[in-house]
Amino acid sequence: MTGSIAVIGLGPGHPDQVTPEASRALTAADELFGYGLYLERVPERPGQLRHASDNRQELSRAGAALDRAAAGTSVAIVSGGDAGVFGMAAAVCEAIEEGPPAWRAVELRVVPGLTAVLAVAARVGAPLGHDFCVLSLSDNLKPWTLVERRLAAAAEAGFVLALYNPISRARPWQLGRAFALLTERLPATTPVVFGSHIGRTGEHVSVVPLAEADPAAADMSTCIIVGSAASRTVWRPGLPPLVYAPRAASETSR
Amino acid sequence: MTGSIAVIGLGPGHPDQVTPEASRALTAADELFGYGLYLERVPERPGQLRHASDNRQELSRAGAALDRAAAGTSVAIVSGGDAGVFGMAAAVCEAIEEGPPAWRAVELRVVPGLTAVLAVAARVGAPLGHDFCVLSLSDNLKPWTLVERRLAAAAEAGFVLALYNPISRARPWQLGRAFALLTERLPATTPVVFGSHIGRTGEHVSVVPLAEADPAAADMSTCIIVGSAASRTVWRPGLPPLVYAPRAASETSR
Repeated sequence: MTGSIAVIGLGPGHPDQVTPEASRALTAADELFGYGLYLERVPERPGQLRHASDNRQELSRAGAALDRAAAGTSVAIVSGGDAGVFGMAAAVCEAIEEGPPAWRAVELRVVPGLTAVLAVAARVGAPLGHDFCVLSLSDNLKPWTLVERRLAAAAEAGFVLALYNPISRARPWQLGRAFALLTERLPATTPVVFGSHIGRTGEHVSVVPLAEADPAAADMSTCIIVGSAASRTVWRPGLPPLVYAPRAASETSR
Repeated sequence: MTGSIAVIGLGPGHPDQVTPEASRALTAADELFGYGLYLERVPERPGQLRHASDNRQELSRAGAALDRAAAGTSVAIVSGGDAGVFGMAAAVCEAIEEGPPAWRAVELRVVPGLTAVLAVAARVGAPLGHDFCVLSLSDNLKPWTLVERRLAAAAEAGFVLALYNPISRARPWQLGRAFALLTERLPATTPVVFGSHIGRTGEHVSVVPLAEADPAAADMSTCIIVGSAASRTVWRPGLPPLVYAPRAASETSR
């Protein structure tokens, strides 16, 4: 008998941002797989097995879970944010395509979740209020030249940019290069939003003009939004500024 | 005394995809504002006033809600999906920037929600598994030439595309033009996903190659995902195909 695999997005981190659909799917699983820090967010249930693995073990984790599912178990893999946005869903699909035929017979269900940038955006107003791109700055799995080409294309076409995986110990200079590239293409006053640990201990959100954006303000867990030339910053007495992308755009919008 | 305004994303439509944070914020409000079809999704609470308005009345709806909040009321405005992605949050920010000073003193809270494309993507695998753009095809508030420029830039740089507001009675030809433009830039086999009413009565999801993508398969409520040249389709015996974007990309990825 073939089992099933659910790939579940846990949202940005606060339990109130986990959908009821995700909570139910977590409870229903016989075995949970995932990066240890994400598994820790899931309430314990007696009788449910847990297989924690290190970060960046996506493909082997997916394979281990598919093996269990193919053997008849009801398995869940957890991701932070949305499983489909730089999460485990693509790794599971890749494993299914490249793995043994038995894995193709496993019933797959992806349970969507709030991806980080939606939570960061909500904290400052509506910086994604118009067309935007979501881009990983990591060059672990793609060449840096491609990252630069995508940054340039998106900024020149007037998209707001959401940057995931902006910096890490192994990738220390890339974010500074990205800011430099964007500075050549966008006004110095373009708002840049840094957001991390939204809804969790250590939440940090800041808004600065592009000319003052400092890569040192980000770490692995930061999600960064870089506005377009059309983005607006609204100052409010006694309240933090709002950042939003106007709903209307003109041909001169960059 | 100044009140507050919460702008709340209701998710794609299924009650299990409304976050607990959104449910709580809905219950806490004294008065609800929103497009009638979205308000109908919110459970009734005795004593809570409701102000339903037509679609496309975003700015006047935002102003009416801000007036009540400035008068001391605890107000909520609802949006489908995420309020920050082609929803009410940008309209509220715009109203605050352009309105009377009293509106700037109102406490604003945006409660994020699952935006439609995450729910559509989850149904077919992980089509957003790598860099992607989110783009409204509506030329009500921007010139069509700008839409075309953004489509071309995104496709040429290898982004997967998520298209919102693809078609309506007033905009009958734009989606066909978009498919034609993308056909010139992407392989004929590029997977295209049509998704509508996810998690609700009348849910419809289909996957076709770009060469066979038919604008007539979409309506106002459809969200469309157009893959990149790197996107993969995985055929499974007895199960629907999976679509995913590989996590790795090369410089030749278009």
